[in-house]
Amino acid sequence: MPLPTAPRAVLIDLAGVLHIDDQAIPGAVRALEALRASGLPLRFLTNTTRSPRGRIVASLQAMGFDITADEIQTAVLATRRLVAQRGLHPHYLVHPDIAGEIGASHATPDAVVLGDAGPHFAYDALNTVFRLLMQGLPFIVMARNRYFMARDGLTLDMGAFVAGLEYSSGRQAEVVGKPAEPFFRTVLDELGVAPADAVLIGDDLADDIGGAHAAGIPGILVRTGKFRPADEHHPTHRPAAVVDDFAAAVALLAAA
Amino acid sequence: MPLPTAPRAVLIDLAGVLHIDDQAIPGAVRALEALRASGLPLRFLTNTTRSPRGRIVASLQAMGFDITADEIQTAVLATRRLVAQRGLHPHYLVHPDIAGEIGASHATPDAVVLGDAGPHFAYDALNTVFRLLMQGLPFIVMARNRYFMARDGLTLDMGAFVAGLEYSSGRQAEVVGKPAEPFFRTVLDELGVAPADAVLIGDDLADDIGGAHAAGIPGILVRTGKFRPADEHHPTHRPAAVVDDFAAAVALLAAA
Repeated sequence: MPLPTAPRAVLIDLAGVLHIDDQAIPGAVRALEALRASGLPLRFLTNTTRSPRGRIVASLQAMGFDITADEIQTAVLATRRLVAQRGLHPHYLVHPDIAGEIGASHATPDAVVLGDAGPHFAYDALNTVFRLLMQGLPFIVMARNRYFMARDGLTLDMGAFVAGLEYSSGRQAEVVGKPAEPFFRTVLDELGVAPADAVLIGDDLADDIGGAHAAGIPGILVRTGKFRPADEHHPTHRPAAVVDDFAAAVALLAAA
Repeated sequence: MPLPTAPRAVLIDLAGVLHIDDQAIPGAVRALEALRASGLPLRFLTNTTRSPRGRIVASLQAMGFDITADEIQTAVLATRRLVAQRGLHPHYLVHPDIAGEIGASHATPDAVVLGDAGPHFAYDALNTVFRLLMQGLPFIVMARNRYFMARDGLTLDMGAFVAGLEYSSGRQAEVVGKPAEPFFRTVLDELGVAPADAVLIGDDLADDIGGAHAAGIPGILVRTGKFRPADEHHPTHRPAAVVDDFAAAVALLAAA
């Protein structure tokens, strides 16, 4: 899938592309300023579900990034919309820090919703979810990423718990965040931009690049964050371009 | 796979067949006495890895079962043998109650060994295992059962954590307990009995019946423990017989 000659919007993953934990990736702050100067509409798409959007924005701004809350689409907020649209009353297994954003679990749930509880994933909470799944409740997950890059190395993401619950329950989860096509489409619809006229920049080959491609959006893979050398030789996920980092991706777009 | 007309050994799963938690299944104590009276050699095969063999035997005897330790093959002890045979120095993520039976984790491990830590499965411990797997260490698991029956209902077993770690790491686990063929073969070799002359009685369609069949041993599925009605109509796992409980399985063998 080729890059558009004149892109009309840029979708940008956050963790691993602009920053790792609370550290900006070298050159990323200035590259974002340069991209802003081009006047292209930007949207930031994150599957991070351990923090509410307000804290994500505050953290990005503290690192020096000029980003506002309404430019950020999170898997948590997309899940909140989906739950409201379907009129569901879920049991939530999520990080305590997003409880205020997603709402409280219902005593008599009609769905199960999983976020990245991180260190709060505990056996008893997983067993409760397992039993609800065995009763046939729909299984909705904010993301199913395999891992992410933290300052001390690659770190287990919520996909492990999704896959494990799927295995034991024999049930299949519905993913709300990347790589789900509606997660990308919602953002592009708001901007009024066709998929082939947009570009996504991400560090996750399967969920960023693979998801964007499935939605018709060309993707640029950066060699930062969770990137691993083998990602450049994947049999099916082929980025439109692979560049060293976010600054190189912006330079590539400027040269187009 | 037909039942032998004159079986020469009976292999029996424990949890869900003879008992649930610390309660004997009705009729199972007397049925085991009747089976003993037939003079057939018996062996008990368990994937339970939350308790050492000594405690499993004590619990069975407290319920009234006439079973000795040397008749029980556990996935923990099979793993200990495999680790010794290969000269491995594993990192263990196991239940604290079997630490004395399996040994301590090595500071510079050359393998990862997972048991059913149960309530002790915690995010940080799983992340440590994930990182070792990403370094390429062999991944050995005592079992990968999906769930088991406890007194308060179907309960998440270690297979969820195995499947989750496989998903995130992209690595494949080697299973030591059921349904691994060597786990059955070791027992039959000790008894000098050919697979087709033995019978297995179990409540787990995939790991008991499927595993036994793969090892050439006809299996009887009981409708107790984790049994679910759908197990009787599985497309590939077809027990030699399905009976209500252990007592009915013993009666079936006596009538053969």
